[in-house]
Amino acid sequence: MTLEAPLKSPPRYQRRGLMLVLSSPSGAGKTSISRRVLELEPEVTMSVSVTTRPKRPAEVEGRDYYFVDEARFRAMVERGELLEHALVYGHHYGTPRAAVEAALAAGRDVLFDIDWQGAQQLREAAADDVVGVFILAPSLAALEQRLRSRAQDSEEVVRYRLARVAADVTHWAEYEYVLINHELEASVAAVRAILAAERLKRRRQPFLSEFVQQFRTGSGEG
Amino acid sequence: MTLEAPLKSPPRYQRRGLMLVLSSPSGAGKTSISRRVLELEPEVTMSVSVTTRPKRPAEVEGRDYYFVDEARFRAMVERGELLEHALVYGHHYGTPRAAVEAALAAGRDVLFDIDWQGAQQLREAAADDVVGVFILAPSLAALEQRLRSRAQDSEEVVRYRLARVAADVTHWAEYEYVLINHELEASVAAVRAILAAERLKRRRQPFLSEFVQQFRTGSGEG
Repeated sequence: MTLEAPLKSPPRYQRRGLMLVLSSPSGAGKTSISRRVLELEPEVTMSVSVTTRPKRPAEVEGRDYYFVDEARFRAMVERGELLEHALVYGHHYGTPRAAVEAALAAGRDVLFDIDWQGAQQLREAAADDVVGVFILAPSLAALEQRLRSRAQDSEEVVRYRLARVAADVTHWAEYEYVLINHELEASVAAVRAILAAERLKRRRQPFLSEFVQQFRTGSGEG
Repeated sequence: MTLEAPLKSPPRYQRRGLMLVLSSPSGAGKTSISRRVLELEPEVTMSVSVTTRPKRPAEVEGRDYYFVDEARFRAMVERGELLEHALVYGHHYGTPRAAVEAALAAGRDVLFDIDWQGAQQLREAAADDVVGVFILAPSLAALEQRLRSRAQDSEEVVRYRLARVAADVTHWAEYEYVLINHELEASVAAVRAILAAERLKRRRQPFLSEFVQQFRTGSGEG
């Protein structure tokens, strides 16, 4: 039998990159989960959205969002520079296309912290590449406690946010995975497991067809 | 606002159990991976097949297989006691139905170490519950080395096995996940990630619809 040289490990770029979309109603802990996943997964790039919403004190330009005015946002939409965009409670949000496409082309996975409207548009644009995870607070009581502790908001503001959650949560059934965020590190591990599993899906490993061929041609020559 | 009592954690039995099917051509290391996954995942039950193949010295009745004669096997088929069964290179193999159904009903996941024929039948019987993982050796050279080191087999036997691999490997594209077994512990971690991710699939958490409801009814009363 003539043994062919073993195939080299497939080059990194041959794996199909995936778009890991984390969505949730507010107060479920999604942002903390995203940050921790990014710390632990060096091969994942965060998609940084543009928004017309005012910057909050703790937020950093270019890390949390690119903050732009309405005119700039409209120009980006008109030039097709956004992969998806949505109006969310009075403010515009969008995903710059170029950064995502560059990351995917380099075989990197991209994490999106976007709402259900953005997720719907990403699925329309690239269904096969989208892995959707919907994150829920462990209970209404826990959620309410969290929203109240977040700032010195009035009862009215808290009630407004709970009403938003009631509307947003109805989109849970559009996501392939649903995660109840009981505890941060357990939820981070769960998201990383989803990432690891999705990378092993047959259709995300386009080099397999050629790889398998060695077992057929090699032994066929015996 | 009237807060409803938070829902209790969903009872264990409400999760839909899954059937984790590991298949591979011989020599890819599937049996070692299965054993290690079972050690580390106490909530997973192994499905022990019945077979008419003779017991090998290292094998244990009831752990590796239930060893039966042809008449007993035929009787099990006739009584519908097997979930799937197949003739594999001259020997019959089958999965006893009762043990699997009891485990799934108790909310336990079941691991199957079966070939592509058995996997096809399981998918026909219970497609939604089947998670298929196909395991490959890292290269033809590694596979051949492994088959040669396994016993003092003749060159003819090794060549026969390689020919079997060439036939069996063609079924890789029927599996949702494909894993190249470069190193045991990495492969075990990969299978465990698949298990963790699949448990988080929305459709495997039938309690979610009721769980989500609390966020709507609670805040709607505010």
